Amino acid sequence: MIAEIITIGDEILIGQIVDTNSAYIAKKLNHIGVDVGQITSIQDTSEHIKLSLSLAAKRANIIIITGGLGPTNDDLTKKTLCDYFKDTYVVNESVLAHVEELFKEHISTPISQLNRDQALIPSKAIALNNQYGTAPGMWFDENGVVYISLPGVPYEMKALIEDEVLPRLQQRFERPHILHKTVLTYGVGESAIAEKIEAWENALPSHIKLAYLPSLGRVRLRLSARGKEKQFLQDSIDSEIEKLQDLIGDIMKGFEEEATLEEQIAQAFVHHQKTLVTAESCTGGEIASRFTAIPGASKYFIGSIVTYATSSKNDVLGIPETLIEEHSVVSEDITLQMAIRARKMFKADMAIATTGNAGPTKGDSEAEIGTVYIALVSETEEKVYHFNFGNLREKVIEKAVIKAQEILLDYFSK
Amino acid sequence: MIAEIITIGDEILIGQIVDTNSAYIAKKLNHIGVDVGQITSIQDTSEHIKLSLSLAAKRANIIIITGGLGPTNDDLTKKTLCDYFKDTYVVNESVLAHVEELFKEHISTPISQLNRDQALIPSKAIALNNQYGTAPGMWFDENGVVYISLPGVPYEMKALIEDEVLPRLQQRFERPHILHKTVLTYGVGESAIAEKIEAWENALPSHIKLAYLPSLGRVRLRLSARGKEKQFLQDSIDSEIEKLQDLIGDIMKGFEEEATLEEQIAQAFVHHQKTLVTAESCTGGEIASRFTAIPGASKYFIGSIVTYATSSKNDVLGIPETLIEEHSVVSEDITLQMAIRARKMFKADMAIATTGNAGPTKGDSEAEIGTVYIALVSETEEKVYHFNFGNLREKVIEKAVIKAQEILLDYFSK
Repeated sequence: MIAEIITIGDEILIGQIVDTNSAYIAKKLNHIGVDVGQITSIQDTSEHIKLSLSLAAKRANIIIITGGLGPTNDDLTKKTLCDYFKDTYVVNESVLAHVEELFKEHISTPISQLNRDQALIPSKAIALNNQYGTAPGMWFDENGVVYISLPGVPYEMKALIEDEVLPRLQQRFERPHILHKTVLTYGVGESAIAEKIEAWENALPSHIKLAYLPSLGRVRLRLSARGKEKQFLQDSIDSEIEKLQDLIGDIMKGFEEEATLEEQIAQAFVHHQKTLVTAESCTGGEIASRFTAIPGASKYFIGSIVTYATSSKNDVLGIPETLIEEHSVVSEDITLQMAIRARKMFKADMAIATTGNAGPTKGDSEAEIGTVYIALVSETEEKVYHFNFGNLREKVIEKAVIKAQEILLDYFSK
Repeated sequence: MIAEIITIGDEILIGQIVDTNSAYIAKKLNHIGVDVGQITSIQDTSEHIKLSLSLAAKRANIIIITGGLGPTNDDLTKKTLCDYFKDTYVVNESVLAHVEELFKEHISTPISQLNRDQALIPSKAIALNNQYGTAPGMWFDENGVVYISLPGVPYEMKALIEDEVLPRLQQRFERPHILHKTVLTYGVGESAIAEKIEAWENALPSHIKLAYLPSLGRVRLRLSARGKEKQFLQDSIDSEIEKLQDLIGDIMKGFEEEATLEEQIAQAFVHHQKTLVTAESCTGGEIASRFTAIPGASKYFIGSIVTYATSSKNDVLGIPETLIEEHSVVSEDITLQMAIRARKMFKADMAIATTGNAGPTKGDSEAEIGTVYIALVSETEEKVYHFNFGNLREKVIEKAVIKAQEILLDYFSK
């Protein structure tokens, strides 16, 4: 079962936005056993849309098209689909009622003919209810290929995928199981690992595929299995990982969870009934914002203090200026002080603090660019870690955020 | 001059990562007058890579391929390019010296044959120096089409684009100018705008293209012009915007800058020599983290306090509990107090504060889901704004962040 995703709109092609829709859709399809064979971003022209549809139809059973469903002239997807299927428009009364309702309840400008025209749907299409917008999704089933057209607005698209598309696909197609398991390794490079596991890799059964995913000081090894019997796939992945354990057990540090780091941390804190505060300098609030992006963060996350300017470490946290001068602002001692004082100030069980120099210039500190300190303080523990994350600003910040999260998770796995 | 971008690797197709590389490359190409006609993400198999290359070569003059250049068996791009061009490998001595140097200076594991093999390059390729990694970029110029292969690691790819690819493309191809100008409008929906400007839109000259970009309470109108004479394009865009002014001048609020909101805010604060603190509840540190992601943020950004738990508004900012009980935690008064107190605490010139209920449940407040208050406090001004951003958590947070940034920018444009 192969799907292709086609995203329509010049916004992506001129780099004005990043295509996050495709990653979302791909992940959801994968979960129900549908492989994505290709993702294509194309111009909003009839010719390009038709060409892409006909090429995709040769390779895939399912084609999901996002974008180009707005009411204005530059949105051509619906018209092009109507041409492509040699179809004509009919008014869909249920969509019309929904559009009129949306305008009555939520939109201050009066409804226009362009808005009402959103209810014109090619006769061969099933309209998919878009609860958050005026453009309905559309489902065509032609010559064994299912074509699904969705709006490009992310929250409209997501609701349609969850509520309309996935249930229908599960009913329409028999799908294999796809299982991924990702082994985390630390401390040894990709090529050195490859040499150690070469014989094992060459002997992998044909239904298991291996990928090396090097990133930020670790290499993830993803095993993907595909087939009809879920239990068989599970067992054969587990058995291969056991063999791997004998070869590189010393650098294997568990598995990548389906849950993100911030979701795992939320679970751990709620489970242990502990509360958390962050005191951030070089990470600038990024750790806090990732925690609070998850619903229910208030169950454990109390707050954060971002002491970005050196002065604020004294003004707000009360760290004595003499101590800052003595140790320098990016140092083990100051990072520890930040965590200790933020923990007290917010009355939290635990605190994690970061300082560092992300570059490109040295700023208020003598520390090398890339230097990062992370301190963890709980009722029973005070610990400071020291890293160098290289000389690229965005990389230093990202690595510091991830490392701080890993340190928090490690605390509970001990 | 048309380019296509091909990204290789299953990570994107299973939704494990979002493809940010393509947006970066597309934007950079656009700046030097190269249109991107298609972006394609494909599987890491020889067949799929070859098929995509041959299809792209029919449509484009420039093909940029990212990914699949690692030293391990699952990376097939280099081998496939070698086959595709019926070529053979030669050792590139300069790449070899670079790989050996990298291992000597920066990598703790010993260099292996797999690493040295990174210096094997198809004889028809020019090697592009990858200062941050072992896999060189490659440049092929065959039958009038330039094929460029780059590593998928974002910071390696970005340095190669800047230092190697763009200068070579500028030398290799004569390019037209491409200008974009994006008009910001607020308060009226996409379809209502379309009706007002229909005649103007239909009369646009053929070298100017219009796109409607609705998002988060505003509609952006992007005019794109393409041609040989930069001044002529500039003049004709300006003249069209003047006509637009007569039609919808009441809802036009300036232009989208090349610079991001956070870059514009940094410029404004540094220019006016003011300092800033944020006091964040519902935005959870996201505003601070966007400011501090920009190099040089320490010139104006002092810090942030994230008082996520209701208790922390009292514990850390000292807002009396009775006041919180009286007004409820998500309210005009409490938001204003947060800004006033954070400004004092951090000794900043200005403070911006957010409270709100992002959902999905009501939490500690009586406020409707979607309610957001934003307070701006300076030496001379105290102002609180009230919004409802709907009932989707990520949308509420994102809108609150953008609106807070717009309020800050507006302050300086008065």
